[in-house]
Amino acid sequence: MATSIKQIVKKKNKLTINGRLWLESNGSRFFGPGPLELLERINETGSINQAAKQMKMSYKKAWEIINTLNEQSAQPLILTQAGGSSGGGSVISEEAKELITYYKGLRERFKTFLKKESEKIAR
Amino acid sequence: MATSIKQIVKKKNKLTINGRLWLESNGSRFFGPGPLELLERINETGSINQAAKQMKMSYKKAWEIINTLNEQSAQPLILTQAGGSSGGGSVISEEAKELITYYKGLRERFKTFLKKESEKIAR
Repeated sequence: MATSIKQIVKKKNKLTINGRLWLESNGSRFFGPGPLELLERINETGSINQAAKQMKMSYKKAWEIINTLNEQSAQPLILTQAGGSSGGGSVISEEAKELITYYKGLRERFKTFLKKESEKIAR
Repeated sequence: MATSIKQIVKKKNKLTINGRLWLESNGSRFFGPGPLELLERINETGSINQAAKQMKMSYKKAWEIINTLNEQSAQPLILTQAGGSSGGGSVISEEAKELITYYKGLRERFKTFLKKESEKIAR
């Protein structure tokens, strides 16, 4: 190439690569940054309501994510005790914890990819 | 891990990794799938109006993308001849073509990354 990519943008501008990753189940979005944060916050607070509030997400939206996760999974990832939004508590399953660990590892590998590509164009 | 990731979803469901990549200029989104398609269609049709129509994008939105691209770049990426939306024609610069080539190469490397990660969980 005649021009290096970083020369395409203005000299003062720093060019980097960024992106987003998610898991698909049969081609439909299944797990990504949003569900990850929701599961982690449910795990911390024991409450879907609290988790949703912390994320400034509607309770309805949180339940939509939870229903998708549970429907696609062999075993429910989020377990809710009777008592409703304030009465009962919610916990995440062992499988959900494994999914979190896997996704975070994947995200690290992706970050390495992005870093390498960003370094290439900074040269 | 006790469970392999693919066992978390229902047996009939195929788990894959997907994602999206874009270039940032000083931390702001600068170039991704949308601008790529717009530039390619302007290059093919010689017309921003035609390109936008083919993408079912408003003329206004197309111009927003073009203005962002041109503002961030050392030299304009899209050159418009006088005559307005139907009269004059539009061409993309050599730098724009190099950006397209670069982005497509990056996208191929990203596809390889996604494929490898998807194969890992399919095992």
